[in-house]
This record gives sequence, structure tokens and C-alpha cells, in this order.
Amino acid sequence: MRCPGEAGEKVVSENGRMSQLRLALAQIDICVGDLTGNADAVVRHAADAAEAGAHLVAFPEMTLTGYPPEDLVFRESFAEASEHALGALATTLAEHNLGQLAVVVGYLAHDQGPRNAAAVIHDGRIVATYYKHHLPNYGVFDEARYFTPGTRFPVVTLHGVAIGLTICEDLWQDGGPFTVAAQAGCDLVVCINGSPYERSKDDTRLALAQRRAREAGATLAYVNTVGAQDELVYDGDSLVVDPDGHLLARAPQFAEHLLVVDLDLSGGHSGGLPSDEMVIERHSISTDPVPPYDSVPAEITERMPDEEEVWNALVIGVRDYAVKNGFNTAILALSGGIDSALVAVIAADAIGATNVHCVSMPSKYSSEHSRSDAADLADRVGCHFETVPIAPMVDAYLDNVTLTGLAEENLQARVRGTLLMGLSNQHGHLVLATGNKTELAVGYSTLYGDSVGGFAPIKDVPKTLVWQLARWRNAYAEKLGQTPPIPENSISKPPSAELRPGQQDSDSLPPYDELDAILEDYIDRDLGWEDLVAAGHDPGTIEDVVRLVDRAEYKRRQFPPGPKISLKAFGRDRRLPITSRWREAAPPGT
Amino acid sequence: MRCPGEAGEKVVSENGRMSQLRLALAQIDICVGDLTGNADAVVRHAADAAEAGAHLVAFPEMTLTGYPPEDLVFRESFAEASEHALGALATTLAEHNLGQLAVVVGYLAHDQGPRNAAAVIHDGRIVATYYKHHLPNYGVFDEARYFTPGTRFPVVTLHGVAIGLTICEDLWQDGGPFTVAAQAGCDLVVCINGSPYERSKDDTRLALAQRRAREAGATLAYVNTVGAQDELVYDGDSLVVDPDGHLLARAPQFAEHLLVVDLDLSGGHSGGLPSDEMVIERHSISTDPVPPYDSVPAEITERMPDEEEVWNALVIGVRDYAVKNGFNTAILALSGGIDSALVAVIAADAIGATNVHCVSMPSKYSSEHSRSDAADLADRVGCHFETVPIAPMVDAYLDNVTLTGLAEENLQARVRGTLLMGLSNQHGHLVLATGNKTELAVGYSTLYGDSVGGFAPIKDVPKTLVWQLARWRNAYAEKLGQTPPIPENSISKPPSAELRPGQQDSDSLPPYDELDAILEDYIDRDLGWEDLVAAGHDPGTIEDVVRLVDRAEYKRRQFPPGPKISLKAFGRDRRLPITSRWREAAPPGT
Repeated sequence: MRCPGEAGEKVVSENGRMSQLRLALAQIDICVGDLTGNADAVVRHAADAAEAGAHLVAFPEMTLTGYPPEDLVFRESFAEASEHALGALATTLAEHNLGQLAVVVGYLAHDQGPRNAAAVIHDGRIVATYYKHHLPNYGVFDEARYFTPGTRFPVVTLHGVAIGLTICEDLWQDGGPFTVAAQAGCDLVVCINGSPYERSKDDTRLALAQRRAREAGATLAYVNTVGAQDELVYDGDSLVVDPDGHLLARAPQFAEHLLVVDLDLSGGHSGGLPSDEMVIERHSISTDPVPPYDSVPAEITERMPDEEEVWNALVIGVRDYAVKNGFNTAILALSGGIDSALVAVIAADAIGATNVHCVSMPSKYSSEHSRSDAADLADRVGCHFETVPIAPMVDAYLDNVTLTGLAEENLQARVRGTLLMGLSNQHGHLVLATGNKTELAVGYSTLYGDSVGGFAPIKDVPKTLVWQLARWRNAYAEKLGQTPPIPENSISKPPSAELRPGQQDSDSLPPYDELDAILEDYIDRDLGWEDLVAAGHDPGTIEDVVRLVDRAEYKRRQFPPGPKISLKAFGRDRRLPITSRWREAAPPGT
Repeated sequence: MRCPGEAGEKVVSENGRMSQLRLALAQIDICVGDLTGNADAVVRHAADAAEAGAHLVAFPEMTLTGYPPEDLVFRESFAEASEHALGALATTLAEHNLGQLAVVVGYLAHDQGPRNAAAVIHDGRIVATYYKHHLPNYGVFDEARYFTPGTRFPVVTLHGVAIGLTICEDLWQDGGPFTVAAQAGCDLVVCINGSPYERSKDDTRLALAQRRAREAGATLAYVNTVGAQDELVYDGDSLVVDPDGHLLARAPQFAEHLLVVDLDLSGGHSGGLPSDEMVIERHSISTDPVPPYDSVPAEITERMPDEEEVWNALVIGVRDYAVKNGFNTAILALSGGIDSALVAVIAADAIGATNVHCVSMPSKYSSEHSRSDAADLADRVGCHFETVPIAPMVDAYLDNVTLTGLAEENLQARVRGTLLMGLSNQHGHLVLATGNKTELAVGYSTLYGDSVGGFAPIKDVPKTLVWQLARWRNAYAEKLGQTPPIPENSISKPPSAELRPGQQDSDSLPPYDELDAILEDYIDRDLGWEDLVAAGHDPGTIEDVVRLVDRAEYKRRQFPPGPKISLKAFGRDRRLPITSRWREAAPPGT
């Protein structure tokens, strides 16, 4: 049933009452490319939703393929497999007596080019499909590379309730589906998402959802995936708001969850001018209202405090990378310093302390406290610990080639990297790199030395936040009556790479609070020279920092992936040339 | 002067003759971010063009900023500096008595968002600006991320000749500027480009230029940059075709060049339906025709044969990466095998043999011929050569940790990587990685071992092409009466990593001709299982190869950059998830 330009009329249940509907949002973890596994998860959670009495259940963006599938989208075999999986899913749901549940599922469609699509499945068939209208092509997103934007807006009537579909970015851009939803007289708009975690994004999301619900004059149900895919972490944060923007329900963060909500759908304003941007299509599953029933109150889970949120993002980033890539165990170099201590605890929280192998690799420059702090941490956390002094290997190089100064410092880091990789090859551990965002920004690390690894858990964590998280994690343990995992000495001592006698980070770098403040302005906010000075940073320090950052681009290119937690992570979020003569500097003559 | 929708009228010189114009295309090498250096190059080549009697000179896409500037585009300070550099250039050209020459130059504009722009400069002022209409967002290109598309089509009258402007992708897409040029009655369309080299792209470019010239009913002048920027190599290939598609002039490939062409501009058909896609703007510099003069014949340089073209692309890729990043010397591991032999010769051709440092690092598994072939090559090429046996370092590790099998094999590669990086740190050499595309595809390399380096010259060269290039380079030397640089033995012996006794590549991999054929279909063409089988590949081999390729994604992420020569290079050209459970396989039940 296709009614181009049709507008304004409103479906209300016949007795004039508000329509009731029990909605379930399935906030689940999916894996890119695992069409079978993801479809199985849909069936499992649809069964739970039916068991809970839901009439409609919605799954995240690209549920069947996982998100983002990146250039797999171009593989015709993959797109065809996704279409096939959707058809098979409709059949399987019906076979499992789930045919009467309306299921909204995301998939990759193959219709005049690849499409980021959502389907409504009911009674063994695909009732309607929606193609994402707004395609994000900024930050980590490349959707203009992949998808053709949709221009149809299907409205599906279920138990007399008019339901519109939208996908992720549709929520973040003005115009398009939400205004069309108002015009189409939708009672409910379902938005399915693969929206990566960023610090403070939850607040933005809720505010946006409230705004769009008001625009649409409809209840908005927002379901997001949870888990991690390479550098992206999904925090869930599924929620429902009513047409006035009131929050009706909110799922816990960073956990799979079925959020069940009873809706009393009043619709709201209908009408508005017909859109020439999208064509409204109407599909009907059922017009009979749900017989009146007693609603159960929905849960509204509180948001976590900032540090807990970040911690969970890092833990899930590591866990999903390890699990989805087939690693049961991890290995890392424990120096006694704060970075490796934090990574060890994240790893232990992610995959279990007994699966974490820590190696202390002291050199002749390593202080006694470094060795003992490392051992102390391993003991507190309960992970494996071994010590391999590097002197024999370092000496073997120095006896055969002349390496002095920085070359000798880097040699020590590379001997450690080689040992770690050797142990990984021997035992099948995932190697975790322990570098933080500040180091990575200014190139304060050794390529093929401390940067080796399959995954870099704190790659997007600035040094000042490393300390903050360490203190938070210790306090959290104390609150639970557990031993704080990180030795106080690792937190409080002055940071040092210990690659030469008495070396301290402060010999080469500005104080970390000053450094991180400049980095946030220069990297996350992309400020130029004049704005950096106007922000109150010291011009000499700006000059040093900018030079270090620009020169280290080649190192960042070869760094392992790690979970994004900031507005702008290194990686696909920030694409800069290695070869570049541009330097932010004071204008000539100033 | 803005005439929306104005169409059809044709500017012809008053005496009814064809209009003459001497055009110069400045095919130059530019550097990203070097606003001052690039502007200086424009002034220098504009002076040469004026000296040659040209009335108009055109420079490549984003001449002032270099191309692609990537996320520098988002830095407001950078966009402002680009706009400022354009204004300063107009002044400088006038100060150098070049004001009467019309100069077309590319830059980053900052007008309702960043724009990929071309300006016509004359007499110290900006006469007209054009914003790129079609923005490429596929392959290595992300222009939808950066630029707002232009919708204005300025036509500049110079000596009575109506000149339209276009930029790069405008040529590759149907509709838009070239059809508008016909409608606007252009005599000449100038297309400025930053179009990266790919094998066989020249043929496509010429055919496209011919087609667009016919569509526009105008002469088409195509100017491309030359040189390299990180992974992209620009081959120049600037050319001019008349409205019937006849090739009038073509510049040499892979070299800076000023292509001077005398044009007799007849215009051609004018009219066509008014476009609602772009608005025509008219600007006039001068309506008086050039007084009649005797044309000089233009050069049409022959294209290079395939191997010579690839060779030049690799040499320029290495040279520009080294020079633009401040390296005078390079170092690489010379094994006696074909890959490192080829890289050594490329490096010698790029930066001079005396600036190339080769290190032989034999292990106990290295054959005698490996050592002698390596020494022989260094001797033929005239580069530095030293030998550092790795046994003492390898033994130091093995004495302290248990590493066996693959872990021991990788150890040897990593000891070599560590030595190479140490020598680089000590002496300031650029480290060249010697891995080829086939190895990189199937993961037949050691992360942090043979993969270390700042640049990887043959990263996009399949193994079969490695041999082909080696034979070509030797034959080329013979033709010039020089010593063939690559020992015949390095070309003809069975390839081996020599990481265990008697090891040969054929123990682990299919024959290279079979392997490369599958890789081209799977990687460059993105074929799925059924199409791979239909292409005639052995199903068992497909399965092995696909598994190896998919599993090696994490290694490719950490590989150094290297010059793109194929349709699809690893890097930004092919963006695949590391975490993925998708595997091409026979459909169940077959």
C-alpha cells in the first residue's frame, strides 16, 4: 500500500481510548560477519520478548551483519547472505511460534546499491523495510562510502498503533524521517542504533531523543547495541521517551538487556506539511487494539558516574576484542608504572585475572621499586607473573653493533617487545600494549618496543585520566570490601620510562596536566595557533607540543587498535597525512 | 556578473576567425601543508609560462595546500592560511610582472564550509572561483567527509575565449560541469587534478577526457600533479584534447613539466538545455582576440610500457616520501632474495646508491648463496653493505625464554627488525620494509620483524610482478649498457624465508602464479566464493587463501605505508574489520 504524499490522518483505536502496546528493546551484543550467530541471538531474545508479553521487539542497527561491516558491504556475496539471512530469520521466527510478535531487525539490504536497512518481520514475512535516510560521514563513520540513502518512510500499523522506523543518524540530523513521522501521524517511532560510546554522549543522546519525540509528536523507542567492534564500544543506553519528551524507560549501560515497556500511545499532534524529501508508505499488520491490560512500571536505570562509564568501556573493549578474535588469555609487560598497572587490571576485569600473564622485564636502569610494584600488583590482582631480565639480550646487541643514546634507549624497549611477542607466539596470548593517549600523541614511545600488541586498551586515555581511573578503581574495590588492585606507589611516584639512569618523563615533556589540556584543544578540538594561545596555553609549550604531535603521525599509523572513548580518538577518527609541512605557529612578525 | 540560467550564446572573436590562445599546463610536484613552498613553485612556473608566451597557465588540484590535505581541512587556521596564501599569490604574481598571465590555481576555500576550489588570478586579483562539484568518496578518497560540493559554474572570458573550470572528479562523473560547459558555450574547459596513479589508468583518463570534451563541445585541458604524497603517487599525464576528442598534447609521465600548447579554438556546439544543477556565472578578463601568430607544434609524449610505469611510480613514491620527510639516506635488510633485492634497486634509483645502506643479517639457517647474492647485489648497485650475523642475539633470547617452532622463526625476524631500527635510530636512515603485496595479503611475514619500516616500497606489488619488475629492470640496464643490478640467482632461485632448515615458501603457500590470481580476484575485485570458483580457481586453494587473507588483517593495520599502484591497495583503499566472522565458503550442502 503506497500513498505518496499522503498526510495528516491519524489512526486511533476505535473506542477512542489510548492504544496500549508492550514494547521490548533488545540491547544485545552482535559480531560483525556472524550472520548465523546474530540471527540466533535475535531468535533467542525474541523468545524472551514474547515470554514477557511484548507485541513488538526491536533490535539494533545492522543486527544481522554486525556494525560497522565496513568494506564487506561491497562484497556481493555478503550482501546476498544478509538478505538471505533476513528471509531465513522470518521463517525461523514463525517456526518458533514467534510469528505474532512484530520484530524490527537491522540488516544490509541490496537494493539499487547497498542499503543500511531495517525490516519489520511478522507472521513469517517481511512486512516493511526502511532504508537509513541520513548517512553519517564524519568522525569514524564512512557511510557515504557504503550506502545509498533511503527516501521512503514506511508506517506499519500494529494493533491500531502507527509505527515509523528510523536508523541511528536519522536521530542526529534535522529534517527527514522525524518530521515525516509527524506528517504521517505516527504514534511510535522506533530508532535502531549502532551508536558508539563517547564520554558524555549519553546526555546528548537523551536530549536529542526528547527533541525528536517532540518533533514527531510520537513516542520514541531508541535501541542501541552493546559490546565492542575493533575500536568502537557500544554502551547500550537504550531508552524510551514520550511525545512530550518525558523519559519512560532506560536500560543499564554496558550490558545485554531486554528493556520491556508498556506504552499508552496517545499519538499527539498530527499533520504538518507534506515532505518532498521522503515518500510515506503504509503497511498494516493489525488494526484491532490490544485488549486493555494493567501496565507494569518500566525501569529507568541511572547513568554511571564518568569514571565507571569509561572503565566499563575499556573492559568491554578488551573483552570483546579478545573473545571475538578467539583469545582466551592476554599478556602484557608490567613495568611497575601506572600505565601497565591500569592495563593489567582492565584485562583482569575483562577476561579474568587467571587469564592475564604479566611479565616484568627489568633492565639495569630499572629501579628496585619498579620490580616490587609490579610484583605487588600481580599479587593483588591474582594474575600470572614472571620476570625476565633483559640485560643478556641487550648486551648481545650492544656487543655486535654500536647503539648509543636514543638508539640504546629504544633497544631496551624493543627487546621487551620482542620477548612479549615471542611469549605470545609460544603460548597464544593476546599482547596488550600499555601506551596511553598522551604518549601516543607526542610520540613518547618506541615503535616496535612498548607499542607492540594486538590491542591497546588505554590508547584513547590521556595520562591524567589514567591516574584518575586508577584512583577510581581502587576506591571502587574498597567500596566492595576488596583489596585495591593498584599499589599506591604506582599511582603516586613520578612517571619514568627508566631507559636511562634517573630518567623522568618531566625531563622531556611538560607537566601532564598542562600537556593534556593542550592536547585536548589541539587534537579533540582542532584549534589552531591563535586559538590555542587564546585558550591560555603557554606559547613555548604549545610550539613544543604541536611539533611533537605532528612528527609522531608515522608512529600512530602503526599502533594497535584500542577502544575509542573520546570525542576524537587516534585512528579513523583523525586522518592526517604523515607527509606534511604544515605547522601551527605564530603568524610571522608577531 | 551573475546570470543564473543564462545559456546558449557563444563568444566568437569579432573577425569570425578561430580564437588563438597559448596555454601552459604546469605539471608540478607539491607538498601537503607547504603553503609557502607551493606558492613559490607557482610563481616560478608561471614565470616560465610567461617566458614561453602563454596567455593562460593552469596548476594542479589544491596546488597551494597539496593534495589530499585530509583532516587538516578541519583546522580553521589551515583553511584561513590557504585563503591568505591565495591572496598573497595574486599580489606576488603582479609584483613579478606576471599580472597579464591568467593563472588557474587550486586551493582550499573556506566558504560555507571547506571547499576544494580553483581560482583564476589575473592582474593581481581573483577573477573567479570554482568549487568542485563531484566529490569522490570511494577507494582512497573521503571528500564527502571534507567538502561542500559547488553549484556555481564560472565562465571566464580571456581574449574572447570562454573558459570553464572543473576539478578532477568532475571529469569522472556524468552530468554536472561538462554538460553545463556545453550549455554555457565554453571554448575551453580547464580541469585541474590530483589524480593518483594506478596501473592502466592513463588509458581510462584519455578516453574520459575525449568523452567529456565531446560532451562540452570544447577543448579540454587536463593538468595533473606529479610526485607522491604518503601512499599516493601522481604520474602527471597532463593532456589536451580538442572538441572532437583528438589528442593535441600530452606531457611526459612522472616528471615535472610545463606543457605548452597553441590552441585554435573553434568552440563547437553551444546550447543544450539550461541546467538546474549548477548556476552559470560570467566573468570577463578581456574580449580582444590575441593577434594572429604562428602556432608551434605541441608535443605528444608516448606512454611508458607497463613495467616502466610501475617502476617509476615506486621510485617516485620512495623519493618523495624520503625527501618530503627529511630523510637523505635509507636502510634495508638484504636477504639475498628477490624482494629485498628489488627494494634496494628502487631505493638506489630513488635517492642514489650511495645513500642506500644494506644490511645482511644471516642466521644459522641462511644459505651460503643468500649471503653471496646479497653481497653481489650491493656490489652491482654500489650501495653500502654490512653484515651482522644474528646468532648471538637470537641465542641470548633462547637462553632466557623458551621459544620454539613459529615463535623461534619469528624471533629471528624480530632480531633483524630490532637491529635495523637500532641502526636507523643511530644514523638517521629511513627504514624500508621489503614485504610484497602477496605476503601482506596472506600474512606471510612477521609483525615487528620483516615488517618494520617507515615506508614499504613494494607493499602493493604482488610477488609475480616483483619477478617481472626485476627482469624488466635488468633488461633496462642492459639496454643502457649498464650492469644488470639484480643477480640472476636472486630472481631464479625458489623463494624461501630461511627461518628453518630447508624452508621454502611453497611449503606453506600455493604456487605464486595461482596465489596471485586468486588474490587479485578476491582483493581487487571483491569476488565471493561462487564467483571465485566460477573464475576457475581450485576450491581447496580458495579456502586456504581466503582464510589466510582474512586472518592477517591485524598485521596489515600495523604495516608501514607504501605506494599504491593497483586498483585496490591495502590501506585506505580497502577498509575491513579485524574482528569479523564472515568467511567466504561454499554454501552449506554443496
